[in-house]
Amino acid sequence: MSNFAVGIDIGGTTTKFGIVDREGKILEQNRIPTNAHETVQGFISDLYEKLSPMIDRVGGPSNFAGIGVGAPNGNYYTGNIEHSANLKWKGIVPLASMLQEKFNMKVKLTNDANAAAAGEQQYGCAKGMKDFITITLGTGVGSGIFIDGKIVLGHDGFAGELGHTIIRPGGRLHKGTGIRGTLESYASATGVRETALEMLEQFPSVDSALRLIPAEELTSEKVYDCAIQGDKIALEIFQFTGQLLGEALANFVMFSSPEAIVLFGGLTKAGDLILNPTQEAMEANLCQVFKNKVKLVFSNLKEADAAILGASALIWED
Amino acid sequence: MSNFAVGIDIGGTTTKFGIVDREGKILEQNRIPTNAHETVQGFISDLYEKLSPMIDRVGGPSNFAGIGVGAPNGNYYTGNIEHSANLKWKGIVPLASMLQEKFNMKVKLTNDANAAAAGEQQYGCAKGMKDFITITLGTGVGSGIFIDGKIVLGHDGFAGELGHTIIRPGGRLHKGTGIRGTLESYASATGVRETALEMLEQFPSVDSALRLIPAEELTSEKVYDCAIQGDKIALEIFQFTGQLLGEALANFVMFSSPEAIVLFGGLTKAGDLILNPTQEAMEANLCQVFKNKVKLVFSNLKEADAAILGASALIWED
Repeated sequence: MSNFAVGIDIGGTTTKFGIVDREGKILEQNRIPTNAHETVQGFISDLYEKLSPMIDRVGGPSNFAGIGVGAPNGNYYTGNIEHSANLKWKGIVPLASMLQEKFNMKVKLTNDANAAAAGEQQYGCAKGMKDFITITLGTGVGSGIFIDGKIVLGHDGFAGELGHTIIRPGGRLHKGTGIRGTLESYASATGVRETALEMLEQFPSVDSALRLIPAEELTSEKVYDCAIQGDKIALEIFQFTGQLLGEALANFVMFSSPEAIVLFGGLTKAGDLILNPTQEAMEANLCQVFKNKVKLVFSNLKEADAAILGASALIWED
Repeated sequence: MSNFAVGIDIGGTTTKFGIVDREGKILEQNRIPTNAHETVQGFISDLYEKLSPMIDRVGGPSNFAGIGVGAPNGNYYTGNIEHSANLKWKGIVPLASMLQEKFNMKVKLTNDANAAAAGEQQYGCAKGMKDFITITLGTGVGSGIFIDGKIVLGHDGFAGELGHTIIRPGGRLHKGTGIRGTLESYASATGVRETALEMLEQFPSVDSALRLIPAEELTSEKVYDCAIQGDKIALEIFQFTGQLLGEALANFVMFSSPEAIVLFGGLTKAGDLILNPTQEAMEANLCQVFKNKVKLVFSNLKEADAAILGASALIWED
């Protein structure tokens, strides 16, 4: 009987990993630097040194269902990390098979956004749902889609890039992709900052505490701090962000008709300031058959644990 | 061994049905009026009278895998037609179970756009594909989505309403839904007509043969006739329509990463005039990982046969 799974979340700077039970309790966790390791072999050695004793402390490999990995540009079909812009290891890195060999356990790998969705289904507020979408509103906008109980991967394993869908044709330039008007350019922490800079310029006569913050220090957190004080421009920034996010969500609903959309990440700290306009704009743009059906909720997983939980959840699938 | 399937396509005016073999050959077909029947019972009696002898002529029910039905607002999960605006039979009509009882065969029912997608997978240019999308560019814009070998139905059976996704926020009003800027408002025969009327007004000094056609007689076919003569405004209309359609398709690709998108319906008669700008705009709006991967093709099924073929294909599934 496999009581545990390992969850590994590989980020550009830090890799977090932990031992997770079937109920989503993290028994032990640790972290190592990612890009400090010049080679993937060095990275795996370091990981093995820290993780192997953790595995042994709860009964060794035979007590484990396997290892789940969330990684940038992780491909579920191949188990490879493919051409990640955020990692030092270039080209195609067959990480799943390398880990499998080292740890002698089943390994499943996907990108971090898909892992987050798996975590919501296994332990979070999409528990038991077959059709739902998770949207991570962080520095960027990530997404994981479940349809009929399975992660949507597409013919090549790269489906679910909803942050790159276009919501304002000809709009704000996304520097990473060179494409204009994408969701990520607006509904991310970076996007909120840009909206703030634009609005301060657009409404020079409106008083705002945001004007006291040097441009380079203006963050989405500071916009939130001002908004809860009733600052007009700060409030308008969340209103605008929610409007665009809600329109985008309406489009996603008309694609896959999910039971719920789960929002996650830094921007959700704005609570109702972002949730209310998002919900309103989504409902306003849905055609009749979808109205008042989709649950729009914030994730109930702790942000610090979610990445490890999500990665581990890949193992309990099917 | 079941050699045949019945395909029934229920339209607002006419219901077409036929006997189809596994290779997609229609052995015999016929049609009855739909809304001329005040009650669904009357409709079924009429259908039985015409269809039953056709079934008997190829060996009777035991030689059939079942009956597939494409119907407006058809719900695959329930087998019901639910609140169709185009049919006289109001409310919830349990058509699948009624047909099952009458014909004593397995019946599967879905909406016409999903049936079209099933047809492409069984007999058309998506043969054998697991991930693809069909878009019908007719009076309206319909869509059917396959992911991992199955029709996407969503939690309620109503997924795949891509014609109602928003591509120009705040744009042209869709009279049916009251929502602005949806794909259907632009990339349908109706939309092309509206674009023509708008452009003729917007560019009063540009010479165009379209000006000789009375407004009420202006159709997408006439725009096509003028475009192949080199008419500048007519060409610009297809360019614009393709641009918007291509942007929308890019969004769909970033959702489900399909192997192909199959275009079908009246507007595809414009050939390269619509295909080229669509392809260009789609590629321009895809982020790197999706570029030059998705096949954008016209359906190779005969329009007259496609609805019956699509409905029959539901039966060969799984």
